[in-house]
Amino acid sequence: MRIAELSSRSGTSVPSIKYYLREGLLPPGTPTGRNQADYDDAHLRRLRLIRALVDVGGLSIAAARAVLAAVETPDLPGHHLLGVAHGALDRPHRRDPADPAWKDARSEVMALVRERGWRVSDDSPALDNAADAIAAMRALDQDDLVTLLDTYADAAERIAERELEVVIARRDPARMVEGVVTGTILGEALLTALRRLAEQAASARRLPA
Amino acid sequence: MRIAELSSRSGTSVPSIKYYLREGLLPPGTPTGRNQADYDDAHLRRLRLIRALVDVGGLSIAAARAVLAAVETPDLPGHHLLGVAHGALDRPHRRDPADPAWKDARSEVMALVRERGWRVSDDSPALDNAADAIAAMRALDQDDLVTLLDTYADAAERIAERELEVVIARRDPARMVEGVVTGTILGEALLTALRRLAEQAASARRLPA
Repeated sequence: MRIAELSSRSGTSVPSIKYYLREGLLPPGTPTGRNQADYDDAHLRRLRLIRALVDVGGLSIAAARAVLAAVETPDLPGHHLLGVAHGALDRPHRRDPADPAWKDARSEVMALVRERGWRVSDDSPALDNAADAIAAMRALDQDDLVTLLDTYADAAERIAERELEVVIARRDPARMVEGVVTGTILGEALLTALRRLAEQAASARRLPA
Repeated sequence: MRIAELSSRSGTSVPSIKYYLREGLLPPGTPTGRNQADYDDAHLRRLRLIRALVDVGGLSIAAARAVLAAVETPDLPGHHLLGVAHGALDRPHRRDPADPAWKDARSEVMALVRERGWRVSDDSPALDNAADAIAAMRALDQDDLVTLLDTYADAAERIAERELEVVIARRDPARMVEGVVTGTILGEALLTALRRLAEQAASARRLPA
């Protein structure tokens, strides 16, 4: 198909498609003449994945590029791919790892991980992200919010278990790889949206209007 | 205190403090001379809140300004404040509300909300965010991921219920308002970090290394 059809079928403007081509997120089509190329269903599929990662997942172009490269690496273990997807979601944070309050928060996260028997790499950025949030709650004298830690961890455990079940049920490795990436990134968008809705419902019921 | 002390006590650089002053996120200190001002504990506290919102919550300066303005509005109902906090977390998304696939996803979210008896405003951005994620999963032929919807909704309900309990237990309205804002924004950062850790643990256990 021509770029115009690729545009209409994917709901992506031609300038955006050209941008993704330039940035190397979308592989080039087969040249059919000067300034013309032919695109196929693989391009359409890739374009949908790019839009999902960037628009719904909120990934930067650089982060999306890293995820797409990992998806294409043959035989990349699912566990490693998860690290790439999580790395793409990581928000680099100006933190001071020598700050005693932050170190305490980091230890609190490590204690939780040990207690629950979670096998997690020591340099996982999510450990630091969790410590950031706890340190910020304590710095703002909102220690009671930190008591929610176990509520969040229970929910996270149940969710991760079910997510893995869905992905493993696919059997086909290529589809499992896709499931890890989209499940991680789109699942986070879905879960946080539902949490906000549940908070609105609970607050409508329990807080004074 | 002088700006240098405010900087060292808050762990925020002087240029950053000056930027927050210029942007109106931090109220000016009491002038004590040419180019000098005195800051107090309220400034220190505010600065910690700004850093939590921007660094940990990932809010833009404009979104942080909206949240801080809402926190300062006396007698703002908690329910409304929650809307402001959720609006600040909302990622504006290029969606086509006329796209039949997106409309189907939006209806699916509304059906879930009705089933669970969640009282939620029809124009809540979180409804659209949830629809975005579901529409993206379906567009990528990952329909099995959508079966996780109830798992996420169950988790969201339990979490929201406990969060509201913590905030309501504070009794003091000003502290409740703070709790809604920080709980919403920092809680999201904490929950998503723990979900990633739980996913890593589940995948280490269940996926081939």
